[in-house]
Amino acid sequence: MTQNIYDNPEFFEAYGRLPRSIAGLDGAPEWPALRVLLPGLRGLRVVDLGCGYGWFCRWAQEQGAARILGIDVSMKMLARARAAGTNAAIDYVTADLEALELPEDSFDLAYSSLALHYVADLGRLLAVVQRALVAGGRLVFSVEHPIFTAPMQPGWMIGEGGRKTWPVDSYLLEGPRQTNWLTKSVRKHHRTLATYINLLRRHRFALSEFVEWGPTDDQVAERPILAEERQRPAFLLIAAQK
Amino acid sequence: MTQNIYDNPEFFEAYGRLPRSIAGLDGAPEWPALRVLLPGLRGLRVVDLGCGYGWFCRWAQEQGAARILGIDVSMKMLARARAAGTNAAIDYVTADLEALELPEDSFDLAYSSLALHYVADLGRLLAVVQRALVAGGRLVFSVEHPIFTAPMQPGWMIGEGGRKTWPVDSYLLEGPRQTNWLTKSVRKHHRTLATYINLLRRHRFALSEFVEWGPTDDQVAERPILAEERQRPAFLLIAAQK
Repeated sequence: MTQNIYDNPEFFEAYGRLPRSIAGLDGAPEWPALRVLLPGLRGLRVVDLGCGYGWFCRWAQEQGAARILGIDVSMKMLARARAAGTNAAIDYVTADLEALELPEDSFDLAYSSLALHYVADLGRLLAVVQRALVAGGRLVFSVEHPIFTAPMQPGWMIGEGGRKTWPVDSYLLEGPRQTNWLTKSVRKHHRTLATYINLLRRHRFALSEFVEWGPTDDQVAERPILAEERQRPAFLLIAAQK
Repeated sequence: MTQNIYDNPEFFEAYGRLPRSIAGLDGAPEWPALRVLLPGLRGLRVVDLGCGYGWFCRWAQEQGAARILGIDVSMKMLARARAAGTNAAIDYVTADLEALELPEDSFDLAYSSLALHYVADLGRLLAVVQRALVAGGRLVFSVEHPIFTAPMQPGWMIGEGGRKTWPVDSYLLEGPRQTNWLTKSVRKHHRTLATYINLLRRHRFALSEFVEWGPTDDQVAERPILAEERQRPAFLLIAAQK
């Protein structure tokens, strides 16, 4: 089963203080780049894999999506999502992405923001999503970038002359990584870029967009700390089509 | 123009002492993985972009390729290639990949080993290759991996407890890199993985294989130093089809 770190009280509290938790989609600097990978949502049936507080589900509803299914392993997250307002178009369901089943040919878009790197068996999940999408359906997702997830001890290193580097090791050694993000021992799964690309191909997804996210000049002008994201990408954004 | 470092005497001497220069294709640990990306060569018309000593051209001829065009900017390299034996099937031509022109619809396979990261305008070259290939023709190439080319000061770092890392910076800052490989100031061009993938797509190549190369267990058993290549990939191998 996927580690349900979001129901850990310490993690849940800390996560709730992140800009993306308070400001929603607009608090995530990669959102504008992810948004342009999405098709127009009017009339679409959408599944959000790892929906968290439900920000994307509510946005999709505003955009005119016909039906939105938000899935998350964390009951605490879903309780917050439901508390933000119920709507006939949105269903929230507690489920582990590791064991998820979805009805066949029933979605036009599968979306996932920063959740799939928690999944150990991504191939299984992609097979489920492939069956759940209609022909021509889209898969749009973000994950932590493999350069970001590779190190056994992730973290910036400051060298001579203030040179800031991201020390990569174990890149080709795929598997679980224990990190201390917000709390101790968050378990993620490191996969290489080649594995993301080849898993999509094996499950008959055609790659349509591939973005190693970095901030725009405007974003850096507004939040100078974002400039460090150009040193090593933290996020990988992918759009693919069945 | 591409920097013609191979005609620099100091570089040429040092390059000539590398295992891959002495043992040819079998001296390159990534060759077995690159070889499996190739189609059967019997009867094919092949162009080798950055052919160096001509090892691949001669191998292609042994495999039954109908015609092989070896291109390199270095006259010294081509002199060595010609000295290794002339053959009616092989032509060696001195040309800068930055300004190369090729006849239309005249090749079944374009091959390149560790040369395209010296090219500043890869988009232009891909357009030339696209036109030069017949429909269904293949492009198979290796380049230095973007994780390898990104740092402004590349090199392993040994940290606490002997932890060996590859310090990445400037990954999203594409452009020239000056490195001191074999001699001073070798100029390469850093591009992200997304740029390689998106340039291929823009020039109507369908990606068929995408490999971040690492050694096999057998290779590590034979040459333990190769294990460090698993910490960060040095080579990216790609096969694509027109």
